[in-house]
Amino acid sequence: MVTRLSNYFLRTLREDPSDAEVTSHRLLVRAGYIRRAAPGIFTWLPLGLKVKAKIEGIIREEMAAAGAFEVHFPALLPRDPYEQSGRWTSYGDGIFRLQDRKGADYLLAPTHEEMFTLLVKDLYSSYKDLPLTIYQIQDKYRDEARPRAGLLRGREFTMKDAYSFDYTDAGQDASYMGQRDAYERIFQRLGLEYVIVAADNGLMGGARSEEFLHPTAIGEDTFVRSAGGYAANVEAFSTAPAEPVPFDADAAPVVFDSPNTPTIETLVAHSNAVLDTANGPYTAADTLKNVVLALTHADGTRELVVVGLPGDRDVDDKRAEVAFAPAAVEPATPEDFERNPLLVKGYIGPWSPEGAILGEESATGIRYLVDPRVGEGTSWITGANLDQKHAHSVVAGRDFFADGVVEVANVRAGDPAPDGSGPVELARGMEIGHVFQLGRFFAETLGLKVLDENGKLVTVTMGSYGIGVTRILAILAELNNDERGLVWPASVAPFDVHVVATGRDQAAFALAEQVSASLEDAGFDVLYDDRPKVSPGVKFGDAELVGVPQIVIVGRGAADGEVELWDRRSGERVVVPAAEVVARLGAGRG
Amino acid sequence: MVTRLSNYFLRTLREDPSDAEVTSHRLLVRAGYIRRAAPGIFTWLPLGLKVKAKIEGIIREEMAAAGAFEVHFPALLPRDPYEQSGRWTSYGDGIFRLQDRKGADYLLAPTHEEMFTLLVKDLYSSYKDLPLTIYQIQDKYRDEARPRAGLLRGREFTMKDAYSFDYTDAGQDASYMGQRDAYERIFQRLGLEYVIVAADNGLMGGARSEEFLHPTAIGEDTFVRSAGGYAANVEAFSTAPAEPVPFDADAAPVVFDSPNTPTIETLVAHSNAVLDTANGPYTAADTLKNVVLALTHADGTRELVVVGLPGDRDVDDKRAEVAFAPAAVEPATPEDFERNPLLVKGYIGPWSPEGAILGEESATGIRYLVDPRVGEGTSWITGANLDQKHAHSVVAGRDFFADGVVEVANVRAGDPAPDGSGPVELARGMEIGHVFQLGRFFAETLGLKVLDENGKLVTVTMGSYGIGVTRILAILAELNNDERGLVWPASVAPFDVHVVATGRDQAAFALAEQVSASLEDAGFDVLYDDRPKVSPGVKFGDAELVGVPQIVIVGRGAADGEVELWDRRSGERVVVPAAEVVARLGAGRG
Repeated sequence: MVTRLSNYFLRTLREDPSDAEVTSHRLLVRAGYIRRAAPGIFTWLPLGLKVKAKIEGIIREEMAAAGAFEVHFPALLPRDPYEQSGRWTSYGDGIFRLQDRKGADYLLAPTHEEMFTLLVKDLYSSYKDLPLTIYQIQDKYRDEARPRAGLLRGREFTMKDAYSFDYTDAGQDASYMGQRDAYERIFQRLGLEYVIVAADNGLMGGARSEEFLHPTAIGEDTFVRSAGGYAANVEAFSTAPAEPVPFDADAAPVVFDSPNTPTIETLVAHSNAVLDTANGPYTAADTLKNVVLALTHADGTRELVVVGLPGDRDVDDKRAEVAFAPAAVEPATPEDFERNPLLVKGYIGPWSPEGAILGEESATGIRYLVDPRVGEGTSWITGANLDQKHAHSVVAGRDFFADGVVEVANVRAGDPAPDGSGPVELARGMEIGHVFQLGRFFAETLGLKVLDENGKLVTVTMGSYGIGVTRILAILAELNNDERGLVWPASVAPFDVHVVATGRDQAAFALAEQVSASLEDAGFDVLYDDRPKVSPGVKFGDAELVGVPQIVIVGRGAADGEVELWDRRSGERVVVPAAEVVARLGAGRG
Repeated sequence: MVTRLSNYFLRTLREDPSDAEVTSHRLLVRAGYIRRAAPGIFTWLPLGLKVKAKIEGIIREEMAAAGAFEVHFPALLPRDPYEQSGRWTSYGDGIFRLQDRKGADYLLAPTHEEMFTLLVKDLYSSYKDLPLTIYQIQDKYRDEARPRAGLLRGREFTMKDAYSFDYTDAGQDASYMGQRDAYERIFQRLGLEYVIVAADNGLMGGARSEEFLHPTAIGEDTFVRSAGGYAANVEAFSTAPAEPVPFDADAAPVVFDSPNTPTIETLVAHSNAVLDTANGPYTAADTLKNVVLALTHADGTRELVVVGLPGDRDVDDKRAEVAFAPAAVEPATPEDFERNPLLVKGYIGPWSPEGAILGEESATGIRYLVDPRVGEGTSWITGANLDQKHAHSVVAGRDFFADGVVEVANVRAGDPAPDGSGPVELARGMEIGHVFQLGRFFAETLGLKVLDENGKLVTVTMGSYGIGVTRILAILAELNNDERGLVWPASVAPFDVHVVATGRDQAAFALAEQVSASLEDAGFDVLYDDRPKVSPGVKFGDAELVGVPQIVIVGRGAADGEVELWDRRSGERVVVPAAEVVARLGAGRG
């Protein structure tokens, strides 16, 4: 049945919505795909719902091909399973909590690991039942502090989340690869370029974690890649540890006056002025920067740590967050320094002529962690723990010893990839999918065990695989548009063909009717702009805004049986006999 | 692709779930369609999700055929629109309310009239935009006091709700009939017998309201119907008002002693003992029963009313609820009587030798409302408002005057239909749909107006049309089963054919494979029980429990190329050549 614009529930808007921060949000609202209902919460109009259904259809087909079965969990869930996993508390303000009329606690689920685990526990008991991968396409909820960017970061959003269940690690690897392959096919069908990057494997004890990122300059995530094929997001990037350097011949540390040099910049300038520069001028890379961080542990206790890293590096907040998780990290406060008078701000170092004040065994007892580049035998200019004094020739492994190594320094273009595949470059991307070996955390916590071949109870190992459906839709809109509107890929376009009848000639409308009907008969989903008193300019503007990839204009040439095919993406227009439209468009399908 | 039971996510259960109160709940859990997640909240397993999708598919097709467009509103909604309509408060404990991290109020929507109204207000402004009917299939929430009967009355449930928008009453009638016709087609396709009954038209000011009931003895609703075609639920049934009876010649009221006769039964017995029974014995229908009710109005004030009705009738709670809405009704309490000493319990009446104590103008000021049968000139035995005393020959319209007429008396088989189509019978049914002219309440409240042909702003008139998708699924399960399990109608069955391979003969499995593949090729959705080491008995039991309408058994006859077709509903089995299976089952399709 041809959809007629004269009575379709669609109104395009001339003005951008005042709250739209990004292109996808602006265009999806203007072109009549979505409307905002509350911050981060949207209503789906007919066009938007059609595109969403097409994305879901592609996902369902690829999940079925991968042998995954669809289920559907409630959005409204009782507290208990999330209490058992610890996430009722650890989600903090990030979830919506509520009570029913009897005062029982519920949440709107942000993700369903607990429920999937309990369902399988409920029904399965033997290794013979495994492997199993089940998934849902479901509306989820997160109480984002700053819902923004339209559908890119909403509070009510649709996700496909899959979970795999195996009783061996090898099985888990196979299930993981099955979903990973399905994701590749899904993104290929959606016409969405992707990079698979190593991701942080989190706290669950799982072995492998990868993100699918769409590389784009407007992406909110940074990742690194080498020409030799390495790719990781910055949180997961690891620095090759430094080879030990011989230091037997080095001079002992020397304290020197360094008034008003609390920053690396001022320290380098001062060093070049007062120290021996026979081997060339000093740079920030010759200094050891010591950053005081405050950790808040899960049990609420607060701990100061000092991180030593080359002076030309900064602490990267995201890498620090991952490195110290589950503890929360923040910079030390003035109060922290007041409470620790041995820490002389701007002059902190791992060595002092008056005895070490950093390290678990030191006067302060504050843990001292270093960047992997601060390897044994490396020599540094660094603080001497005395006001207005630094020291040079301070050698790691001789003059100081760290309590551990930590990866919090920022990654830079040119840093070597950890797999030896050459220097990395930095790029930006948008997360479009995540595949993740959860390991046995949830199964252990919630008691999901099966009997193995020997009749022994073994804990099941799980994988988690997520795609944000509404987020993907927004990203596709973000990537497929021009100054005049949306330009959908054929695989997700709300209609296959947009037929526009122009002019006042009844013959044009009659021919447009006929062309629309023959396209529908040939299996195309047709939107027919049959509005009788709307100018061609408005109709063309609407067609460009709505973004159906193929437009057929039926107007002046109608008397001669001719129509114009207009490719929305290339802008190319070509006049063809009306009788050839189906064949012409059919040739371009699939 | 053939679905193989050996790896399908399905476990049938031998035991009934302990919390299942009704057949549909019991069988849907045992056969692996749903699992309970919390009271009134369910997880959908693959089989259940397939049946649900089929029901939704039928609804979508019929909505499209009726010209309705699909949209999708959030479940999580801000308070404001519901505050404007007054429903934030009037829903009472019946909805889930919550706050976001900023303390803003939200609810989980139980129904979306406000949001639909505001959406159309947002986008439309002219009579030319109308008529419009839009709908959604969406998960809704109600905090039921007693979630029960599985999916029949859940707290999270799926509904299709449609709303029509017109600017004339004639347009509204047409839109209403469009949805009503679509509902008839939907229920016909679902194989669900229905009766369309007049329903209460509520408080919204709308003109017409009808329910689709499935007639069944286990239904929770009572409705009445006449042989002449009248049908209404009991709340909407109206009693024909009594014709005035001449009373000029009647004797004046007479008070008589009636010790220990506070009930109709004792009063009738006493009357037959002490009064003149020349015209035959008195019955309950000769007495006027006066029931004191307490109303709680929307503003919280409490009001007592007295209702007078023939002594052979009782107050029907549901009819009283509708008659007095939006006030809540309950029986008067002992405290109410203490506060109103003029009301002598068991001896209350509208007339008294000492002056009226009922009616707005009376000593108590308590409103006195009567059943339509208490018409002018009717004569009654009733309380005399004196302890242990009644009166006879008390005549309506002469000795007492009511403040109004009210429809709260129970309906009985044999009561005349209000349209003159004969006596009614009572029947029970389950509500499966509701079509409802809302009129202009929401449009007025939320300011939805359009310009008419004359450029004048007119308020839009709306209709509301609901089907409970998950409830329909439960009702279908409730109606289609036997002692061995479910028996789905073909239109909603999770699979078209269930192929069962039995025995240990590899030839049987090879033939079953082949039959399954040829059925899939012919467009059938096939569930193939390929489990290698499961006994035929267990396989047959599972097939009967799951309830796919057509079963193909491939076993002993396989060597001769023969299989058995088993019709799940009739139980009939017939041996046919394997090569004929597709043709045999194909003949029975559609």
